[in-house]
Amino acid sequence: MTDTPVPEFQLQCPVPLSRYPQVLLAHGGGGKLTHQLIGSLFGPAFSNPALDRGHDGAVLDTGGGRIAFTTDSYVVRPVFFPGGDIGSLAVNGTVNDLAMCGARPLAISAGFILEEGLPMETLERVVASMREAVAAAGVNLVTGDTKVVDRGKADGIYINTAGIGVVREGADIGPEAIREGDAIILSGDVGRHGIAIMALREGLSFESEIESDCAPLVAPVMALLDAGIEVHCLRDLTRGGLATSLTELAESSRLTLAIDEAAVGVREDVQGACEILGFDPLYVANEGRFAAIVAPGDAARAVEILRNHEVSAAAAVIGTVTRAMPGVATLRSRIGATRVLDMLSGEQLPRIC
Amino acid sequence: MTDTPVPEFQLQCPVPLSRYPQVLLAHGGGGKLTHQLIGSLFGPAFSNPALDRGHDGAVLDTGGGRIAFTTDSYVVRPVFFPGGDIGSLAVNGTVNDLAMCGARPLAISAGFILEEGLPMETLERVVASMREAVAAAGVNLVTGDTKVVDRGKADGIYINTAGIGVVREGADIGPEAIREGDAIILSGDVGRHGIAIMALREGLSFESEIESDCAPLVAPVMALLDAGIEVHCLRDLTRGGLATSLTELAESSRLTLAIDEAAVGVREDVQGACEILGFDPLYVANEGRFAAIVAPGDAARAVEILRNHEVSAAAAVIGTVTRAMPGVATLRSRIGATRVLDMLSGEQLPRIC
Repeated sequence: MTDTPVPEFQLQCPVPLSRYPQVLLAHGGGGKLTHQLIGSLFGPAFSNPALDRGHDGAVLDTGGGRIAFTTDSYVVRPVFFPGGDIGSLAVNGTVNDLAMCGARPLAISAGFILEEGLPMETLERVVASMREAVAAAGVNLVTGDTKVVDRGKADGIYINTAGIGVVREGADIGPEAIREGDAIILSGDVGRHGIAIMALREGLSFESEIESDCAPLVAPVMALLDAGIEVHCLRDLTRGGLATSLTELAESSRLTLAIDEAAVGVREDVQGACEILGFDPLYVANEGRFAAIVAPGDAARAVEILRNHEVSAAAAVIGTVTRAMPGVATLRSRIGATRVLDMLSGEQLPRIC
Repeated sequence: MTDTPVPEFQLQCPVPLSRYPQVLLAHGGGGKLTHQLIGSLFGPAFSNPALDRGHDGAVLDTGGGRIAFTTDSYVVRPVFFPGGDIGSLAVNGTVNDLAMCGARPLAISAGFILEEGLPMETLERVVASMREAVAAAGVNLVTGDTKVVDRGKADGIYINTAGIGVVREGADIGPEAIREGDAIILSGDVGRHGIAIMALREGLSFESEIESDCAPLVAPVMALLDAGIEVHCLRDLTRGGLATSLTELAESSRLTLAIDEAAVGVREDVQGACEILGFDPLYVANEGRFAAIVAPGDAARAVEILRNHEVSAAAAVIGTVTRAMPGVATLRSRIGATRVLDMLSGEQLPRIC
């Protein structure tokens, strides 16, 4: 009755995760503890054939054609905020950048930089959130990496995600495809993500909590393409907000992106918080909003399609592409004055993504 | 003679890079300074059609077939070391992971996490090194991201790279393809990278400086595949070194990877440094070495091909795949005793990549 063979699982994972309440340097050393972290946390959370293979990289079949490739690092503080956390943000941000290329997300990678001493429970919460986000976005996490840095560095956790997607056949989406006369559609109200973070940091409270708009934008974008809408450009309105995104597109296309302030939705509580904090909501980051620039004849139908999706239920045309002032974006204010939008020259909201 | 139009370039980059001797939080804010950093540093360094397009992601034509996808973050300290720096390491590490999948690297991404106050000159040196490394590896850097975190975080600079490559048609490379009888080939001497870093940190000096072996491994791997060598598995010997890599492959394949200590090249100065520092060179990280597991009949020809490339000029067969002890790697010592290799359970060399 002795000499019972040790079950294979036990041999490979000799120490249950719970034995380590905090992340140690050795969890990033590539040895036993790294393998244990992968085997007991990352592996089960994100299991799929490409990841489970355990090789240096994932091998994927794209089915041919063009692919989109993008990356972002996430250093948001605090790690958890109303409406999301660094994990959901890292998945949705990258998935959305692929969608903005007219691509259906195929796979994402995750590179974790962890601070020694990070409570394991924090990492588990973030991983659980990423797991939900990849499922919601219909994508697989197929390859990853973990590094651990000394105490006092990295604020607990930084995450990089990269993503690849298959570009919709026939889609030609980018600043160079924007044409005079195109309609500028905004998918919903702006400013929620940045204000949710800043309100938390500043200890502001409102009648109802302001939640981040963090969400995947794949479904509404694919619906536009499926319906044959002539989409010329897509841009998610992250760092720098709507104003910076439109300015970038105006610069790249050498056209004028002229929008109407009254058409841009801003929730009353977000507007109030912006006034308290001294922010312009047009420059505040969003994580679930995008601008679509479409052929004028398709604008009404595009808005209708977007309104069928919860994440873009408040979509509206907010402006037009003209040649009035090549290379800049302009805003017609509520009182009828037109001004040039510009990029921020300083840092309005550090560490919001 | 007044009213000379401002040249367009000056309008887009109003402030020369040299105006900012250090990285500011605003360089990561997505506004003017981020654009200036891209326009004056990253853009010129890595210029290629996919990157220059300035969209949310790069769109690439893979020519169909399977692609490999991988990621790694780099947090090495110090940032510059004999034989390389965090920039060349970040490029070569990811390019090599693609090569280990039997894939020709197609494109890489770069995600920078910078510490506020990082000397701009440091960033410029790192970018110049990455530029050289991408050229040497024959790959394009096509998409990127920059975040800036507060002073005291991130040790100056962390870099994440992800990469995609096109898998060689017909290649079936991975732990599951390893067969009993296969030859285990090592591409060169081991232990240089980890010892170069540790010697620098500990202030050890030797008659000749020990340089990291950091180098791209694409050319020798492609040469093996071009020659029709039946390659079953490839693994670069990074964190955890040769011993950990072989242990991982033994576990995954449920076979025995049996190597001969006398066949494993270790430079005398590296061996000496290991003795002083208390390290086993088999566990020390390399950044330009790999193990190739090939069909027995192809072993001699594979070694000959590898020896034609400078980076693998000292390639040699170091062992065989057997069924003696399924799931483990074993080492026959110089005195003829055989012992089981194991993964490190602690952290031998923190922050070496």
